[in-house]
Amino acid sequence: MRLNQLIGSIAEAGRELLNRTRPEARSVEQLCEDLSSSKGEAMGTAIAQEVVAAYDKMDKEQKIDFFGLLYNKYSSDRETILKSAEAYKTTNDLETFKALSVAVDGPRKNLFRSFNMAPNGTSTLVRMREDLFELLPEHKELEAVDVDFLYLLKSWFNRGFLTLETINWQTPAHILEKLIAYEAVHEMQGWDDLRRRLADDRRCFAFFHPALPDDPLIFVQVALVDGIAGNVQDLLAEPRADDDRSNFDTAIFYSISNCQEGLRGISFGNFLIKQVVMELRKEFPQLKRFATLSPIPGFRRWLNKEVANAESALLTASEKEQLSQLNSDQWHTFESYVDMVEPLLMRLCAHYLYHAKRGKYPLDPVERFHLGNGARIERLNWMADTSANGLAQSAGMLVNYGYELSKVEESHEAYVNDHAIVTSKDFLKLID
Amino acid sequence: MRLNQLIGSIAEAGRELLNRTRPEARSVEQLCEDLSSSKGEAMGTAIAQEVVAAYDKMDKEQKIDFFGLLYNKYSSDRETILKSAEAYKTTNDLETFKALSVAVDGPRKNLFRSFNMAPNGTSTLVRMREDLFELLPEHKELEAVDVDFLYLLKSWFNRGFLTLETINWQTPAHILEKLIAYEAVHEMQGWDDLRRRLADDRRCFAFFHPALPDDPLIFVQVALVDGIAGNVQDLLAEPRADDDRSNFDTAIFYSISNCQEGLRGISFGNFLIKQVVMELRKEFPQLKRFATLSPIPGFRRWLNKEVANAESALLTASEKEQLSQLNSDQWHTFESYVDMVEPLLMRLCAHYLYHAKRGKYPLDPVERFHLGNGARIERLNWMADTSANGLAQSAGMLVNYGYELSKVEESHEAYVNDHAIVTSKDFLKLID
Amino acid sequence: MRLNQLIGSIAEAGRELLNRTRPEARSVEQLCEDLSSSKGEAMGTAIAQEVVAAYDKMDKEQKIDFFGLLYNKYSSDRETILKSAEAYKTTNDLETFKALSVAVDGPRKNLFRSFNMAPNGTSTLVRMREDLFELLPEHKELEAVDVDFLYLLKSWFNRGFLTLETINWQTPAHILEKLIAYEAVHEMQGWDDLRRRLADDRRCFAFFHPALPDDPLIFVQVALVDGIAGNVQDLLAEPRADDDRSNFDTAIFYSISNCQEGLRGISFGNFLIKQVVMELRKEFPQLKRFATLSPIPGFRRWLNKEVANAESALLTASEKEQLSQLNSDQWHTFESYVDMVEPLLMRLCAHYLYHAKRGKYPLDPVERFHLGNGARIERLNWMADTSANGLAQSAGMLVNYGYELSKVEESHEAYVNDHAIVTSKDFLKLID
Amino acid sequence: MRLNQLIGSIAEAGRELLNRTRPEARSVEQLCEDLSSSKGEAMGTAIAQEVVAAYDKMDKEQKIDFFGLLYNKYSSDRETILKSAEAYKTTNDLETFKALSVAVDGPRKNLFRSFNMAPNGTSTLVRMREDLFELLPEHKELEAVDVDFLYLLKSWFNRGFLTLETINWQTPAHILEKLIAYEAVHEMQGWDDLRRRLADDRRCFAFFHPALPDDPLIFVQVALVDGIAGNVQDLLAEPRADDDRSNFDTAIFYSISNCQEGLRGISFGNFLIKQVVMELRKEFPQLKRFATLSPIPGFRRWLNKEVANAESALLTASEKEQLSQLNSDQWHTFESYVDMVEPLLMRLCAHYLYHAKRGKYPLDPVERFHLGNGARIERLNWMADTSANGLAQSAGMLVNYGYELSKVEESHEAYVNDHAIVTSKDFLKLID
Repeated sequence: MRLNQLIGSIAEAGRELLNRTRPEARSVEQLCEDLSSSKGEAMGTAIAQEVVAAYDKMDKEQKIDFFGLLYNKYSSDRETILKSAEAYKTTNDLETFKALSVAVDGPRKNLFRSFNMAPNGTSTLVRMREDLFELLPEHKELEAVDVDFLYLLKSWFNRGFLTLETINWQTPAHILEKLIAYEAVHEMQGWDDLRRRLADDRRCFAFFHPALPDDPLIFVQVALVDGIAGNVQDLLAEPRADDDRSNFDTAIFYSISNCQEGLRGISFGNFLIKQVVMELRKEFPQLKRFATLSPIPGFRRWLNKEVANAESALLTASEKEQLSQLNSDQWHTFESYVDMVEPLLMRLCAHYLYHAKRGKYPLDPVERFHLGNGARIERLNWMADTSANGLAQSAGMLVNYGYELSKVEESHEAYVNDHAIVTSKDFLKLID
Repeated sequence: MRLNQLIGSIAEAGRELLNRTRPEARSVEQLCEDLSSSKGEAMGTAIAQEVVAAYDKMDKEQKIDFFGLLYNKYSSDRETILKSAEAYKTTNDLETFKALSVAVDGPRKNLFRSFNMAPNGTSTLVRMREDLFELLPEHKELEAVDVDFLYLLKSWFNRGFLTLETINWQTPAHILEKLIAYEAVHEMQGWDDLRRRLADDRRCFAFFHPALPDDPLIFVQVALVDGIAGNVQDLLAEPRADDDRSNFDTAIFYSISNCQEGLRGISFGNFLIKQVVMELRKEFPQLKRFATLSPIPGFRRWLNKEVANAESALLTASEKEQLSQLNSDQWHTFESYVDMVEPLLMRLCAHYLYHAKRGKYPLDPVERFHLGNGARIERLNWMADTSANGLAQSAGMLVNYGYELSKVEESHEAYVNDHAIVTSKDFLKLID
Repeated sequence: MRLNQLIGSIAEAGRELLNRTRPEARSVEQLCEDLSSSKGEAMGTAIAQEVVAAYDKMDKEQKIDFFGLLYNKYSSDRETILKSAEAYKTTNDLETFKALSVAVDGPRKNLFRSFNMAPNGTSTLVRMREDLFELLPEHKELEAVDVDFLYLLKSWFNRGFLTLETINWQTPAHILEKLIAYEAVHEMQGWDDLRRRLADDRRCFAFFHPALPDDPLIFVQVALVDGIAGNVQDLLAEPRADDDRSNFDTAIFYSISNCQEGLRGISFGNFLIKQVVMELRKEFPQLKRFATLSPIPGFRRWLNKEVANAESALLTASEKEQLSQLNSDQWHTFESYVDMVEPLLMRLCAHYLYHAKRGKYPLDPVERFHLGNGARIERLNWMADTSANGLAQSAGMLVNYGYELSKVEESHEAYVNDHAIVTSKDFLKLID
Repeated sequence: MRLNQLIGSIAEAGRELLNRTRPEARSVEQLCEDLSSSKGEAMGTAIAQEVVAAYDKMDKEQKIDFFGLLYNKYSSDRETILKSAEAYKTTNDLETFKALSVAVDGPRKNLFRSFNMAPNGTSTLVRMREDLFELLPEHKELEAVDVDFLYLLKSWFNRGFLTLETINWQTPAHILEKLIAYEAVHEMQGWDDLRRRLADDRRCFAFFHPALPDDPLIFVQVALVDGIAGNVQDLLAEPRADDDRSNFDTAIFYSISNCQEGLRGISFGNFLIKQVVMELRKEFPQLKRFATLSPIPGFRRWLNKEVANAESALLTASEKEQLSQLNSDQWHTFESYVDMVEPLLMRLCAHYLYHAKRGKYPLDPVERFHLGNGARIERLNWMADTSANGLAQSAGMLVNYGYELSKVEESHEAYVNDHAIVTSKDFLKLID
């Protein structure tokens, strides 16, 4: 029996129990107080269930009140902290240290742990955090509440608790429909598109957590191809009848999507990619290369600044002139223009990936992620994603990051210690 | 695929990967340092797996060194704490609070979280704590290490992550054999005894955690009987051929055993009993009563003190004389003696349960547990467990604690707020 | 491991084995001969697999040859039968009877049983029969081959081997897509339509056979509604936001579709309906009525004959005149015409259901099926299916057949013994 | 949901239904008649369930009556057969052939097919046949009933419907306990013995049928060892602590047991051995040899005849004298005697295996089975099974039959066509 169903069966019985003992509904404030008292130990599951039910019915105003309650009443108490710190300073023994720990840890984390005992408790906490994100811009003080959410969820969604599942056409429909909804990189056009992406020469893997058995946390889509894929249009197209799709040597990770906004800040991608590389190597010993086909989300923004920068050393006036057409509609359909700007844009984009920084690390966030994982820049691809989004982000270019497991540690070290941008030799040729 | 198998499959691939990149094995000290550095993010699963493998090979001396390392190098840093506390006192903003939190939280919990990423990481952490318990008497300072173990495991083994499973004769043998090993209340005599306890008129339920799918955390054995059972011998005997076992109205919880020493201090029993009551009520609407048949572990110890106490107001000299035979072998087989002391011992034991205290709460630990859960004392039973252990603990008496769900909250409140000992009317008659 | 996967794993190994021992592929003729010889016992699985692989590659001409082989070489031998019959006539003992049985049974059934040992053997046999149906019109003699197919498949698809499965949105996509393909009564418009039919107030059940785990044999779609549903448009429409869908007392079986053409002539519908009634009664004790909403496929055809029949006692000339408009497009959208013909068509259709016969039983095939199952005619519904198909078959009318389990046996007996048309009282009022 | 559970759930509902419609129980005779009538189609599952329930309560006398009913009332009708044969002789068309088929096939098989629709129908039929075997010696005429049982069960337990399952210490206890009960070759001494046989260096596989999910049909026990094992004592002993059990190159099939007496005459062993060879080869590519360690059940019986045969050309008088000690207790513990008779008995046993015949095939039944499967005689082993049974059957010798898949077909052909006894070269040396 799955976790959820099982706790679900408690729910029903628990509700019955509660109906008997507490005829009128109690306020959420009272419920939280009960959960934080000794009653929480005796009646925890049942009360937690009432909190979840109450939360499910709240409108936005009530949620603001609820998070306000969490902030005002369940934050760590400053006076206690300062007093405990003083005592610890004086005595320096385990007891005063533990008292200080408890004071700093505060009552809110334990309240969240109590919520978690309800059926669907974990998923409710994830949704709560998602809701909280919407309120943060207007209610900065609630950031303190998020600190506790993040602390707990990071601990609970530890890699050791996740399972890797293969997603394919045998997967239940209610999970597949979530893939359609969550795909963030190359939007899915419905069930036929999905089915293409789950064909024999494709693979899809996702991480799941036992408390959210119906909800993937993150998934990656892989194409098994012959040679490194240089554009995404081919990958998403229907295969031609005469394709020989059995003759592949390369796995292309062409889309990685996080699914749970409420788990923002908890990183799954690195673990996912590496485990999938290992799974694929086991299933297909013939695979020689593993690489992403990744967006370059910051390139056009950076480029626009360079163009606007009167003192840019990178661009001549005539080059700037050329680039001005990039803002016109459909520029990518004018062959002669495309041919003309290709060398220029390839050079600029390579420069962006290699030299543009935020602090000591690359400016591009996707690049930071993959180099941080120990991947290297493999190849820059022209006219690789001609969707509206691809043109807007990176003038249609995509980049391959290569994952060679035996070099991952070394590359990671070079990146972290020396801030090195590890690349293939071919890519380096694009750099002046 | 089960969690363990899955991560297991990573193990293999991960090992292969590591063999390539790190030809010589590194010391555990180095591995822990790697895990705590940025390398932990990039290579976490693989390094954690090396730690687990290394731990599995340690002898006792090496484990002392290992826990010493955890204590000396990964405890919270006093200087940083004091400095952060000072900063927090001065500024009182979220940033300084967070800095203080991180300082107090210390690096060891994160190290443990990294260990958890290994295949079998969670079970290794549970075993580590079990090993630590053996060292604590000689190494008091390591209690600080246990504080972090307990904090983390309590959070990870939250009720919301546990599943209730029915254990029966269809259960895999490798799990059943653990029941035989773990049964702590009424020892099991092998597979035939187990089979009797899993017969049609018996039920057995256990909590499992997804990360330990083959290891129950706690299990309870239930007998479905007609009327409240007053002794355990009948429950464990082979059923007579002419028994009508379909005509029951009472569920007796005659044995509850925790299975994981490494999870000591994390309470599962209260949740388990209440959920099992609900499950049974759903399966058998005819059930009218739910009660334990529980040991009274502290009675003889307390009684011995009363006997030794020259000023005891409870016992006359001749009564003390009578009781002196309790230390003789086989006293329970002398009918006339048994009849003689029955009223005296029943009265004394009732007095013990009702009046003997530690602070404001009952002296008896099992009684504290059940009354704290909102149960009440139902009935005291004479000659209820005539095993050597039963005679030694409580002169062969057992007590029923009754669980009536609709009164649990009220009883719990009376117990916690007024320190009331809630009992049946019949039991009260035993009290002067 | 599922049946198919398991045998699949043999396939691979078996192929390997065969490659070694039989370098050149053998003809299907030779393979069949091997299977029928003692070699079949020693090497059956592997040879059967070769047959299946060979069949998968045959074009239509080769299939004609293949079935010709099955006919010419594997039919029962007339001479042997006649000789065995003679011997049996003379001796009348078990041995001569068995010899006659074997002679009559013939070698082809055993050949089919050998095919069945291959991975996917059962599904291949079902497909073979489907292919055979296409050849029968041109190759009447092959009917003898079908006799053996039907005999075997009927025995293998015995009700006792089938499992009832609930189909819902948690069902794997590759099975759901088959529902879309197989729905024969009210065509499905893709995934959104399917999802509506699997909503909370709908149920879908299917029979599966263990050897075809991915292929439903038959499925029924049920709507849970308040009162007997009189038209299918409402059932298939998106629910309105203000519907209270929890308040139902009736289960409407609005579509039953057989999925496997190759199992034609083997009846599953009767078992399916009755078991689903029992399942629903268990899940929803509040259900009071179980009824179909069924097409009347033969009504218009019969009516056309009546109209054409100059001597019809059922229709006046002016009525015939009225009915002539039924052939015009969109007649059902002209309200006044619809109102005018309603009483006439309702009367005629009731007459058709009640009086029109083929032999002693009803002319309408769907009616024959349901009355034969022990159902009764409940209600005739006007403008109940205004799809092109519904108008063409039955002028848009549908009929409810009611299944009251406690009366099923009695109704069935009345139908079989007395050829009674059991109906509700209301329906009878439509009959003159 | 498993087949049995599912049909079980129908049972309950069906019973309810029947209670309503048929207040008094009907006789089995009446139930069988109902099942054979059109009522069987409408109400089959429910009536079949009543038959099964009635059968479960029958004593031996009632079973005799029941099988008598099946014989007298449901056998093929001689008159109809003869008439149909006559018609077929005259007309020779498909219709008369089909009529003859139906007449010969008789009504009893269809009755059995109706029984099969009940929950547990298949297992009831298997038990019926087992019961029938006990009656056959006294009721020869019932052999005709068994002919139909065998025909049907052989078809239903076709290899294509069976699944191979691995049995290990993770297998549910209620299945493991059946292994203990069914082990026919080397008796199991309870759970500890079983556990040894399921250790890491052992494998156990069984065939299951979907309609009997809790009951293995046949199972084989395999030891993974280094070099061909020559005695069973070592295989069944507890492993020594210093054994290196990872270094194996040979799989020894040391015990194959059929489990269902009611399926006697339906051969599973050949399929099982070959598939297990393929499974093991896949799991352990290092395996070089696959061989049984088999009993020689007919040797001592044959030998006794030779000894008694005054004209035996095989034995001198003094050899006969030597062999007379074989009947004494504990002869195998007298080392000098053992050494003396070893060459003589090895030669005689090899002779027995090579030359002793029944018709053109070997006299020994186990040898017939394995050579018929395409195995060859590998090696004869002295003092290989010193259990009472081993000594009584074959003077303690066991023989290895080798399965080399790539030679199986060739060996099988030689055996079937030329009645060749295929052996290793070493074994041949024992022959004259």
